[in-house]
Amino acid sequence: MNLLIVGSVATDTIETPHGSVDHAVGGSAVYASVAGSYFSNPGIVGVVGGDFQRKNINLLKRRGIDLEGLQTIKDGLTFHWSGYYEKDMGQAFTRETHLNVFESFRPDLPESYKDVPFVLLGNIHPALQLDVLSQINKPKLVLCDTMNYWITSAPELLKKVFRKVDIICINDGEACQLCETNSIPVAAQQLLKLGAKRVIIKLGAHGVLLFGKDSFFALPAIPLTKVIDPTGAGDSFAGGFMGCLSSSKKLDETAYRRATVAGTTLASYCVQSFSCRKTSSLKEEDINKRAQLLVEATKLPKLRFTTKKR
Amino acid sequence: MNLLIVGSVATDTIETPHGSVDHAVGGSAVYASVAGSYFSNPGIVGVVGGDFQRKNINLLKRRGIDLEGLQTIKDGLTFHWSGYYEKDMGQAFTRETHLNVFESFRPDLPESYKDVPFVLLGNIHPALQLDVLSQINKPKLVLCDTMNYWITSAPELLKKVFRKVDIICINDGEACQLCETNSIPVAAQQLLKLGAKRVIIKLGAHGVLLFGKDSFFALPAIPLTKVIDPTGAGDSFAGGFMGCLSSSKKLDETAYRRATVAGTTLASYCVQSFSCRKTSSLKEEDINKRAQLLVEATKLPKLRFTTKKR
Repeated sequence: MNLLIVGSVATDTIETPHGSVDHAVGGSAVYASVAGSYFSNPGIVGVVGGDFQRKNINLLKRRGIDLEGLQTIKDGLTFHWSGYYEKDMGQAFTRETHLNVFESFRPDLPESYKDVPFVLLGNIHPALQLDVLSQINKPKLVLCDTMNYWITSAPELLKKVFRKVDIICINDGEACQLCETNSIPVAAQQLLKLGAKRVIIKLGAHGVLLFGKDSFFALPAIPLTKVIDPTGAGDSFAGGFMGCLSSSKKLDETAYRRATVAGTTLASYCVQSFSCRKTSSLKEEDINKRAQLLVEATKLPKLRFTTKKR
Repeated sequence: MNLLIVGSVATDTIETPHGSVDHAVGGSAVYASVAGSYFSNPGIVGVVGGDFQRKNINLLKRRGIDLEGLQTIKDGLTFHWSGYYEKDMGQAFTRETHLNVFESFRPDLPESYKDVPFVLLGNIHPALQLDVLSQINKPKLVLCDTMNYWITSAPELLKKVFRKVDIICINDGEACQLCETNSIPVAAQQLLKLGAKRVIIKLGAHGVLLFGKDSFFALPAIPLTKVIDPTGAGDSFAGGFMGCLSSSKKLDETAYRRATVAGTTLASYCVQSFSCRKTSSLKEEDINKRAQLLVEATKLPKLRFTTKKR
């Protein structure tokens, strides 16, 4: 276990223009750990109820995910989200949210988790993210992912988390909302000032931007003609990203770019099915094929323009 | 003259959160030809009224732009657009449009224009684009740019133009509107089926996508912390793109990618001032500096992922 992931472990009932699922396994920690498991050995910190199905546990185990940090409250129910997407699938609409066992969840890290080098604070209440972070001795690199819900309900607590992490991962609208600006570069500069080494701005179908103090990297998304369900794309990105990074020898710009490709690739597979159906059954070649597509899609020749004298 | 540009020649009254201009020189043919003039020798097909100021003519002449195809109707008024942008500057709102001399404009190409190899059908009524195209003998490469106004008011005529050109240049929302889809890749595939070699999808601040039958290229925009006025960005892109392409020896994928960098660079300078103030006074180094930034921003290492065996 070299990558600790805290986040929700849930069952989701989802309806999109392309179909629906009922109580399928989901949650930020699930999507992220499954994605990360291709490159590293993640472990989950989270909680489920007695209703959490054996097949879901088996799915995580098959992916080599350490579950020592996953508490089970036998007489409780697993966190459940029910929602739907309209035609353009740009936004998730919530029908029901039942926090259930998450309502009283207090992370209690197993001893073996406390010296973990890589930490992914998945999308969950910032208070829980802080709590987990406080129990880890000396992490090498911490990424914090989040969503609009926490920006609206707990912006100051979220900024407190951001001040403690190495990488902030946030989508474009959320970054602009939090920083009260319409400009992504302005938001990224503001977020970098909180102390992070890198700020990742997720653009959905338009890809992802990686801002450093003196660096800027942009990667498109894989162009997909059919998206089945966008749920978990951001979590899969973060999981793939941190999984890849935690297996890197160096933590330099090249490693961050490699990790961005890994995250983008996993996110692209995520949205092509419900739940983790695709991301839990990929082959090495599936990942490398899309990574290669991204290499081709961004390739530029050497450039030097000679302009007309006027 | 190796690049014919047809489009509007106008004066614009514009208000943005960062200031305003009154009757500044504008129009798609102006923005595009100024941008293209760094790489090639463009000529304009268009019309102005007797009120079109000498200083505007001089600006175009200084940029080496051929004006033999620019008609002057002495007792008419130049096309005038007045509009404003709100805080996020994502959309232009029109206050007034006076077509003036454009209302009865019939392009009449000078003999010297009819053998031009490269043609940019700038944003203007598709009927005028068709008219110009019909007068050119055997162009080597034709690009058609457009905007939502023509998609709404003349979609079938616009598709007729698209069927006759090599490159379609359109923004994301417009492509989706025209193709009745929410998916950019789906729209691009549909547009390619009309016969174009490449479809350029402009994403505004998110850059640009270049779709071919068997190719896909994505380029981010230059990250700017301050945008003064977005007017003319798309025209400057198209002009820079075609200017660069018309100076290329080969017309292959590499040339298209180079041209995309040129267009992106010119568009980035365009939005940093009103009218053509910035794009008319660039130095070679200004262009190469931003081109280099794009090269850096898209650079990827060699990639080959080895996944964990599970």
